Amino acid sequence: MRAVDLIRQKRDGGVLDRAAIDFFVTAVTDGSLPDYQTSALLMAILLRGMTPEETASLTDAMVRSGVRVSYPGLPGTAVDKHSTGGVGDKTSLILAPLVAACGAYVPMMSGRGLGHTGGTLDKLEAIPGFRTGLSLDELKTAVATIGCALIGQTSEIAPADRKLYALRDVTGTVESIPLICASIMSKKIAEGIGGLVLDVKTGSGAFMKTPEASRQLAESLVAIGEASGVRTEALITRMDSPLGREVGNACEVIESIETLKGSGPRELEQLSVLLAARMLVVAGVTSSESDAEGRVRKAIASGAGVEKLRKIIEHQGGNPRVVDDYALLPSAPDRATVAAPRPGFVVSIEAERVGRAAVALGAGRGRLDDVIDHGVGITVLAPPGFEVRRGDAVLEVRHRGGKGLEVALAMLNEAVQISDASPVVPSIVVDRV
Amino acid sequence: MRAVDLIRQKRDGGVLDRAAIDFFVTAVTDGSLPDYQTSALLMAILLRGMTPEETASLTDAMVRSGVRVSYPGLPGTAVDKHSTGGVGDKTSLILAPLVAACGAYVPMMSGRGLGHTGGTLDKLEAIPGFRTGLSLDELKTAVATIGCALIGQTSEIAPADRKLYALRDVTGTVESIPLICASIMSKKIAEGIGGLVLDVKTGSGAFMKTPEASRQLAESLVAIGEASGVRTEALITRMDSPLGREVGNACEVIESIETLKGSGPRELEQLSVLLAARMLVVAGVTSSESDAEGRVRKAIASGAGVEKLRKIIEHQGGNPRVVDDYALLPSAPDRATVAAPRPGFVVSIEAERVGRAAVALGAGRGRLDDVIDHGVGITVLAPPGFEVRRGDAVLEVRHRGGKGLEVALAMLNEAVQISDASPVVPSIVVDRV
Repeated sequence: MRAVDLIRQKRDGGVLDRAAIDFFVTAVTDGSLPDYQTSALLMAILLRGMTPEETASLTDAMVRSGVRVSYPGLPGTAVDKHSTGGVGDKTSLILAPLVAACGAYVPMMSGRGLGHTGGTLDKLEAIPGFRTGLSLDELKTAVATIGCALIGQTSEIAPADRKLYALRDVTGTVESIPLICASIMSKKIAEGIGGLVLDVKTGSGAFMKTPEASRQLAESLVAIGEASGVRTEALITRMDSPLGREVGNACEVIESIETLKGSGPRELEQLSVLLAARMLVVAGVTSSESDAEGRVRKAIASGAGVEKLRKIIEHQGGNPRVVDDYALLPSAPDRATVAAPRPGFVVSIEAERVGRAAVALGAGRGRLDDVIDHGVGITVLAPPGFEVRRGDAVLEVRHRGGKGLEVALAMLNEAVQISDASPVVPSIVVDRV
Repeated sequence: MRAVDLIRQKRDGGVLDRAAIDFFVTAVTDGSLPDYQTSALLMAILLRGMTPEETASLTDAMVRSGVRVSYPGLPGTAVDKHSTGGVGDKTSLILAPLVAACGAYVPMMSGRGLGHTGGTLDKLEAIPGFRTGLSLDELKTAVATIGCALIGQTSEIAPADRKLYALRDVTGTVESIPLICASIMSKKIAEGIGGLVLDVKTGSGAFMKTPEASRQLAESLVAIGEASGVRTEALITRMDSPLGREVGNACEVIESIETLKGSGPRELEQLSVLLAARMLVVAGVTSSESDAEGRVRKAIASGAGVEKLRKIIEHQGGNPRVVDDYALLPSAPDRATVAAPRPGFVVSIEAERVGRAAVALGAGRGRLDDVIDHGVGITVLAPPGFEVRRGDAVLEVRHRGGKGLEVALAMLNEAVQISDASPVVPSIVVDRV
């Protein structure tokens, strides 16, 4: 088999069989395929597409490029959640302890933020001492003893994806549904889970801007999961305005703890409860959604969820007292506000602009090697639906000595949309697959 | 300007402006653009196409990546011919001396053969001592003193093309009209010519299989030439069967000399006279095609053409006595024939199969580092239109100790098409642009 022949075949709209895709992924993983041939094939895939069979073969080959974790002796099914990325999306921090508190096992592997969406690892690292770099053995021990762990990707998991993603990022080949699906699902399948709930974001702040495009992505992801023996379902949820009230790192940790304590913003709690319930269902803890929701709400009310978070933090080297004393978390000292330019109702607070503003302040990364400031962030004081007078503070900005503030404020002023009429704020869940 | 943004722009069907194309070609030339970004862009160009303006900008940037030769003090316009590649196509060896003998200046730069089509440099190197690797200064001296030179590409001419072509070859991005046009025309424009005649081949043995596709390529090439101030025209000529009777290196040199002496095969002479006449017209030697043809035929009849070839060979270090004594040229000692399998008329001798058979014998290259055997070759004894009895020799093969013979004979037997009815052999010139 010659790489140039595979490239030509895909270039001309042909279908690559399993052997061809295995050849490609193996050669990418062992470094024998030159990057210039890989990138030519990636561009041909982006422009010519892949059949569901090709995407499944690609995912499978990427799983087999590394270790597929297993949990021998675990008295239940491991389950995970994946979000396609949003602004203020901190549900991983809530779901892992909550679902584990309800008796499921959650080996949750997350990523770092890049661009306008935040990353779970960055948020966790706002907790003093918290280690996200657990080995696979440490992951297994954590899952067996406390029911869950919140860690980063290890190098043994889908190494082909790591190489392909790095190349896609610099060759304009990120925006391909088959490549996105294979990247997401190979890492999740390799985690050794039996159930997966996907939170596919839709809207102006999401990668997919329309419910139709999001549904198409969700269907592809679910099909791949099911084909690999992972019980997979997807919720399609709105990402026009930030999720919850906090955007940043330490401030999102606090909001997650508050939600586990039953004091989170309504919409964030509603989505967290639904995602947690579906995780319990796909994990086989219960088959009824209402029963699952009952268990989740009980774990919030009883404090079992927040107690589990304390355990996770302790197990992973962090200071568990942050759960009770938020002053132990980093916080930037300086404040600024974004005021309503006129009276009316807040219609939306554009998520992408808020996310970009957070990056400007130092809460995220424009480039992979940027250093995160965990103490800066943005608080939504007047979320969509709120009535405001001219000059009322809509957003509060926590910054450090004005760093990035001018850029951030310009973006945030543009992000706030105010209308005369009271808007209908639609439900967070748009669709299910 | 970021390379990834250009890639994304072309990927999404956008048009790259002159500044973007300059940035790309400059970065390819100085090595600052990684090959993986170049190949992703090449694939996007292949699949999304380029506008005529983009192709012109690309050609111009590739010309400017190196030296554009000039001939100060030359009392006339430099002119060249380019063929898109055929089997048995030795017209360069005929045209350079013939046109120079008629008073035009011909700085002819040619390439080597790769795949089933031969290369002018390989044919010339069949002449003992002949140097094709002249410097640009030597080229200028040759053009000034004897009116022409037959040389290879120098590294100063369109270095961007050299890099791009090497990458295209291994990334499945050869077959793109804009990339092909820019590659051909950048090299020709950089030669410093004022006139160019293109011989665009069409048919089963050509890169373009249909007259329509060939015409489209010809129109693109002519448009680029004209946009760069080079008076450019194209003939579209048949390449179904080999051109002339000889396919190989030394044997094609002999056939070229015979044609210059007025004893060449009719079709080869006809095409050579027409191409030479058009070269004289675009060089401005005369404005009338019939006058030009008259001058060319006179240069054949008077021996001025063959005399000029003798001068070229002498000037470039070869043994000029080959013109009179073909025994000085290499010749493989062994013979085999391909016989007519049944009585009838030869309809065609498929050029591509003949070309591949010649490569198998050692006359050409399957890979760039293959070594050429200048003495092997194939002679067409019964060209299309000839009546044959069963067992009559249609082709004669000159081989060396049976090397590649079995493979070659299998291809050649398939190449010969015989029918009951006498075929109409169409004119070699199909169209003009």
